[in-house]
Amino acid sequence: MKVRVYVSLKNGVLDPQGRAIQHSLEGLGFSGVRDVRAGRLIELEVDETVTDAQLDEMCQKLLANMVIENYRVERISA
Amino acid sequence: MKVRVYVSLKNGVLDPQGRAIQHSLEGLGFSGVRDVRAGRLIELEVDETVTDAQLDEMCQKLLANMVIENYRVERISA
Repeated sequence: MKVRVYVSLKNGVLDPQGRAIQHSLEGLGFSGVRDVRAGRLIELEVDETVTDAQLDEMCQKLLANMVIENYRVERISA
Repeated sequence: MKVRVYVSLKNGVLDPQGRAIQHSLEGLGFSGVRDVRAGRLIELEVDETVTDAQLDEMCQKLLANMVIENYRVERISA
């Protein structure tokens, strides 16, 4: 089973990488970009036996830093 | 308007970061994780006037490395 985990910075947390991307887009001539936030996408291939609780635990222990980041888990195929 | 860009490595491209995550999960005692691929999630806040073609151009010029990465653009709210 395929699982996607989306990790993004919480609101209010400074995002220098996102700011750098935004400035680069402006430098390339793109207008209309008001804000950019950079996050991570982690794709897992797991056995059917892996539960949602286990996936949550993986995120909280390793994949996301719960102090500054939020995560969202999405199961792609059963 | 909010736009999400998902950037992931193409199949066949070695992913040391994903491999490291997989080994760490095993080290933490999680079983059943067969494969891990690491990618990026970029959230943009753009004006309504920004077209799909412009978003594609942003991805191809800056956000993704087209040689080794794929990207997917998703508009969240109109």
